[in-house]
Amino acid sequence: MTKENLIACHNRIKPYIHKTPVLNSRLINNLVGAELFFKCENFQKTGAYKMRGATNAIMLLTNEQKTKGVVTHSSGNFAQALSLAAQSLDVKATIIMPSNSPKVKKDAVKEYGGHIITCEPTIEAREAAANHVIKKSGATFIHPSNDPNVILGQGTACMELLNEIPNLDVVCCPIGGGGLIAGSALSAHHFGQHCNVFGGEPFEADDAYRSLRSGKIETNKTANTIADGLRTQLGHHNFPIIREHVKEIIRVTEQEIVQAMRYVWERMKIIIEPSSAVAVAAILKEKEQFKNKKVGIVISGGNVDVNRLPF
Amino acid sequence: MTKENLIACHNRIKPYIHKTPVLNSRLINNLVGAELFFKCENFQKTGAYKMRGATNAIMLLTNEQKTKGVVTHSSGNFAQALSLAAQSLDVKATIIMPSNSPKVKKDAVKEYGGHIITCEPTIEAREAAANHVIKKSGATFIHPSNDPNVILGQGTACMELLNEIPNLDVVCCPIGGGGLIAGSALSAHHFGQHCNVFGGEPFEADDAYRSLRSGKIETNKTANTIADGLRTQLGHHNFPIIREHVKEIIRVTEQEIVQAMRYVWERMKIIIEPSSAVAVAAILKEKEQFKNKKVGIVISGGNVDVNRLPF
Repeated sequence: MTKENLIACHNRIKPYIHKTPVLNSRLINNLVGAELFFKCENFQKTGAYKMRGATNAIMLLTNEQKTKGVVTHSSGNFAQALSLAAQSLDVKATIIMPSNSPKVKKDAVKEYGGHIITCEPTIEAREAAANHVIKKSGATFIHPSNDPNVILGQGTACMELLNEIPNLDVVCCPIGGGGLIAGSALSAHHFGQHCNVFGGEPFEADDAYRSLRSGKIETNKTANTIADGLRTQLGHHNFPIIREHVKEIIRVTEQEIVQAMRYVWERMKIIIEPSSAVAVAAILKEKEQFKNKKVGIVISGGNVDVNRLPF
Repeated sequence: MTKENLIACHNRIKPYIHKTPVLNSRLINNLVGAELFFKCENFQKTGAYKMRGATNAIMLLTNEQKTKGVVTHSSGNFAQALSLAAQSLDVKATIIMPSNSPKVKKDAVKEYGGHIITCEPTIEAREAAANHVIKKSGATFIHPSNDPNVILGQGTACMELLNEIPNLDVVCCPIGGGGLIAGSALSAHHFGQHCNVFGGEPFEADDAYRSLRSGKIETNKTANTIADGLRTQLGHHNFPIIREHVKEIIRVTEQEIVQAMRYVWERMKIIIEPSSAVAVAAILKEKEQFKNKKVGIVISGGNVDVNRLPF
């Protein structure tokens, strides 16, 4: 995917997204011994970068496809993002959600105008429900991460970051399904000046780390991590991009995730979700290799249930 | 205090403080039916606007006074602010803290270089300890709110806000000791275009509300509020300014404070402390009178103990 693809994507979705701020913190800089720049997608509409990819994917549908609507299965940030993006573009969104999804997440999807279909909490049930909607209504399935148009959209966060701080030495993102890091890697490649891309991943869901080692997509046996956005699997669209452009994946423990999250909450006074804390934890953990560098971190989202915090 | 006093104060302290961002939220605007602008002093150094007044007060000391150091009694944000401001200006700060202060607050003061003297948790013990330090070392006592130079410093947050959004119809701040609202009222008077000043106060510590009614400084019998920064009393320096320039004080319940705090955390993804939520709660409560107005809110701080949240 070319530089021109990214620029066109950014121009396309710009009216529908926030240009989020880039924040930094003297205290965290001192702690790491580097200059850190936080691209705050927690301040994005729906509280996460997912708005970018969802908007781009819907905008690139044909008029006929738009009339028939879109469908996805997600219990997380993509469900909300697709709902709001669809609503903004006057398209119907159906979200397949497992029956055990927290009420707070269902309410958020409804608030953004998404139409929920509940299914059993298994991959098979999700896919069957989605296929049923597609067959019945002709809706287009939009994957949360494994879709070139979604990847392009997600890459625009890093593109904005590099427009603001062009000489970053490093960009670091969390890795779940791989959409954010693949898009960010494309942006770093096209807009950076020798900008190296790092990923953060929980030990508990380290499919990307293992996939980079083995050269083929590995699966997570379990995904018992607090970073609920990172329990998903890499896909065949984003893995080749990651393989080509990502320098290293740093794995972190659950304790390191919670510590990093707490540190950012307490020192920067911004709410970041555990998945975003994974990228911060990765930089803290390996701070020796980032010494005196300019490091961008994509803070992917800020959606947490304040009644269920890990501290 | 004149416009020139405020400008000179701002120029004086500028190198030592952050110019904090002004944030807004589509969702909160929709909820209130007004345009809200949050001046984010939670992102200020030490996590609160108190840095401004503390810095100004120390900078205006004579060289001889600076050599002898400063002292205050506070268990809250002013203790941290005076410590860091003094450290930045190479002055010794002694902080009298009651023996029941949370460890997290003592640690913060130490981190910013303050020298702690512990005393019994009574007003008498605090004052005796402060007097002892003053007698022994010749240190200058700096009051957290009832000091003209502190008031001027605190006013610079609202001044920056009005420089950024000159046509605000309303500015709203929480009221504790009265330093922030007095300073803000001066700034609204000198830099606003017919900008009305409102205060938010907990029912549980409504000394300012009652003082405005009676025309003299009333005391709080109890101050049983979650807004720990607002348990203090008005002083004779700030009360006349409040009387002259503050249009109305809106009182809010404990439940309204927690709801507003939660709303800002969840929707804006920023950490505000209960005292700041009081100003937000005041606007939410009386939203009818702010309809279609441009409303600035000074978010006074973001210092909370994440282990002891009210939700």
